[in-house]
Amino acid sequence: MNSKSLVSIDDISRDEILQLLESARHFEENPNRRLLEGKVVATLFFEPSTRTRLSFETAVNRLGGRVIGFSDASTSSSAKGETLKDTIKMVSNYVDMIVMRHYLEGAARYATEVTDVPVINAGDGANQHPSQTMLDLYSIYKTQGKLEDLTITMVGDLKYGRTVHSLIQAMRYFNPTFHFVACEELRMPDEYKDLCDRNGIKYTEHTDFSPEVINASDILYMTRVQRERFTDIMEYEKVKNLYTLRNAMLADAKDNLRVLHPLPRITEIDQDVDDNPKAYYFDQARNGLYARQAIICRALGIENA
Amino acid sequence: MNSKSLVSIDDISRDEILQLLESARHFEENPNRRLLEGKVVATLFFEPSTRTRLSFETAVNRLGGRVIGFSDASTSSSAKGETLKDTIKMVSNYVDMIVMRHYLEGAARYATEVTDVPVINAGDGANQHPSQTMLDLYSIYKTQGKLEDLTITMVGDLKYGRTVHSLIQAMRYFNPTFHFVACEELRMPDEYKDLCDRNGIKYTEHTDFSPEVINASDILYMTRVQRERFTDIMEYEKVKNLYTLRNAMLADAKDNLRVLHPLPRITEIDQDVDDNPKAYYFDQARNGLYARQAIICRALGIENA
Amino acid sequence: MNSKSLVSIDDISRDEILQLLESARHFEENPNRRLLEGKVVATLFFEPSTRTRLSFETAVNRLGGRVIGFSDASTSSSAKGETLKDTIKMVSNYVDMIVMRHYLEGAARYATEVTDVPVINAGDGANQHPSQTMLDLYSIYKTQGKLEDLTITMVGDLKYGRTVHSLIQAMRYFNPTFHFVACEELRMPDEYKDLCDRNGIKYTEHTDFSPEVINASDILYMTRVQRERFTDIMEYEKVKNLYTLRNAMLADAKDNLRVLHPLPRITEIDQDVDDNPKAYYFDQARNGLYARQAIICRALGIENA
Repeated sequence: MNSKSLVSIDDISRDEILQLLESARHFEENPNRRLLEGKVVATLFFEPSTRTRLSFETAVNRLGGRVIGFSDASTSSSAKGETLKDTIKMVSNYVDMIVMRHYLEGAARYATEVTDVPVINAGDGANQHPSQTMLDLYSIYKTQGKLEDLTITMVGDLKYGRTVHSLIQAMRYFNPTFHFVACEELRMPDEYKDLCDRNGIKYTEHTDFSPEVINASDILYMTRVQRERFTDIMEYEKVKNLYTLRNAMLADAKDNLRVLHPLPRITEIDQDVDDNPKAYYFDQARNGLYARQAIICRALGIENA
Repeated sequence: MNSKSLVSIDDISRDEILQLLESARHFEENPNRRLLEGKVVATLFFEPSTRTRLSFETAVNRLGGRVIGFSDASTSSSAKGETLKDTIKMVSNYVDMIVMRHYLEGAARYATEVTDVPVINAGDGANQHPSQTMLDLYSIYKTQGKLEDLTITMVGDLKYGRTVHSLIQAMRYFNPTFHFVACEELRMPDEYKDLCDRNGIKYTEHTDFSPEVINASDILYMTRVQRERFTDIMEYEKVKNLYTLRNAMLADAKDNLRVLHPLPRITEIDQDVDDNPKAYYFDQARNGLYARQAIICRALGIENA
Repeated sequence: MNSKSLVSIDDISRDEILQLLESARHFEENPNRRLLEGKVVATLFFEPSTRTRLSFETAVNRLGGRVIGFSDASTSSSAKGETLKDTIKMVSNYVDMIVMRHYLEGAARYATEVTDVPVINAGDGANQHPSQTMLDLYSIYKTQGKLEDLTITMVGDLKYGRTVHSLIQAMRYFNPTFHFVACEELRMPDEYKDLCDRNGIKYTEHTDFSPEVINASDILYMTRVQRERFTDIMEYEKVKNLYTLRNAMLADAKDNLRVLHPLPRITEIDQDVDDNPKAYYFDQARNGLYARQAIICRALGIENA
């Protein structure tokens, strides 16, 4: 595997995380720097993801690089039956870096095995989306002034939500306390609870989205509960309402609490929360620009001091 | 509402119209100026419109800016159920300006209410498309040497055609005389005739597309009659032919007459008109580049003297 | 027709071919040169072709130009019923050059007749794709050190494959020997055998893909056999396997033999060939970047010395 690729948040150490956060901070101060002059980046989206794609493309453009790619596999040569290997090898001839989103787990890892060009995983199925994790970490760091010793409550789809899984992996270095709030069908998998246990990380599990849990939190990380996950549609309708955050529920929260969400949100955060100063999800999206500029420069070996 | 946004032609005064035309004239002399260096513009097309999108994207690129966006909502996050508000707030984090086309009336106005980034309306349903109106005005001004005291004949779909409605609104400052040529089903709505009355603007209505009307005109503004507008398809077939401009019909027109059309045209202007020096619709499209460069720079507060 | 357009490989002389190869060689040494500063190029893909589109877009971007366009006619105004003439005339107002792919034979030639902007044909139906031919020639030249007196074996769909037809046309200046390997249904058309006869070019025809033919070759040009070509699906299944290249089949090939393929490949080259040093199809794709930079600069009249 190419050492500069970023496939999984597990590929980077605690020190590298901290370096990326520092780099993101520099980019926030000045996101328009021509560090990618003469570079071409491919954004290969085998499944659509507007937010992630636009964020990466803005990051490249503000650094003076150029973008080629596709936003949808239906207009790509893979629709003609080309293998992923051949598509990656083809594109590698043209570009200096590949950002890819794929519907299959492991697709990005595989891509790193067939090309010498650095690959950034922008989501592979339900598996990994490390640039999302970096922007989550940066958002936590900015709003809390630290990463250590925080209480983080995760709400919604904890079974399939790759963002919460990766966030646990990345936070394991920083002594967090987790509260996992989900219905039975969407509980946090044992794999991640085992990871907490092995790392001496405290966690509690809840089916109720109660005031006690909210009021004890520094970060409230909401996620989307998708209808497709349920075999029983009635169950979905019930759960959807149970795990919706409303403004009144933040009345007694800690001052420093911030609400995060990877977006898009559907109904899991009520519109009346948007004007609450604790709502941070749109700022969080902006942090994605800086975190991705940091990741891109790391992948290309570009110093941005 | 953000003061630099352009949602409706009614948002800009007579003086601002004249300033934009003057600015467009400067851009026509030199469309390649790096006034947007370091700027990123989003083109969000919730419904496809190749001409408008390519025209705006060319305008940005020739000014040295960069473009991100989508050309079709089916590959955007709104397909996942994201609200327009959230999409606009998300994109606002990345870009310096938003150009948007939406299938719903009022979408662009709404966008200005949820973001501080300037928004240019590139068409919202049957409502407004102000950059089209500016390029129409610029085309009239260039070909007639003035905007005042002109006779403008509008032909085709006067009921649903937003371009003719906006052109009436913009021309009300310049003492025009209008002829409205349409079938009963597609007559000019009372709202716009009332606007003429209130502003002391002369107009006549016709169901015949007669030589008398053509020969009295300085500008012949043709529009597309869309099959979807008719409940009776036989009626459509009849109307379609009645309002088709053919080269022979221009034989006795005034020397200064020019034929405009917002494009795309289907059958409403016969191909044999294309080589007539009075045909101006392709040049009109080119004027869109300069008019849009003027609008973009106004939105961003960039002087282009 | 505009003299700088490139519609067919037959439009360029032997000398011009050699000049383009020399120019491609310069671009390979330094593909990042700002020769297209201030230029905007349209890539109009009325049918999708990821490889060709990304290759052209990379070529423009690495030369400092900008790209607008569409990757799929379904989001273009032609979906609203606009004629090709009107689309081309519209886009010509915005850009300095048009690269177009169309599903109809003759579409690119027609485009040159309605615009003064140079047009590069990126494939028109089963007809021509001259930039592919130039990259094939460049690949042959690079790997063999010459174009003269080579033995080229073409395998697969020789009836509908436009790449092999164009390669014959271009190689006629360089005294090649051809072997045509195909099933009865997909034999090389008489038209191209007549062309060989008229130019004194030796060729043989084979239904067997035999070691003798491979071992006599300098270039093995594989092509994709498409299921759609067959009325009898059983016949397709048989043929598909007969003309698949496997690694073992290259055991006694000449040292200088290189395997070319226009890509995408499906099953006609086994994956086990990919690591053979004689496999050249991915490098061939990279050569497309340089060949297209040469073609673009020729079209725009830009010296690249």
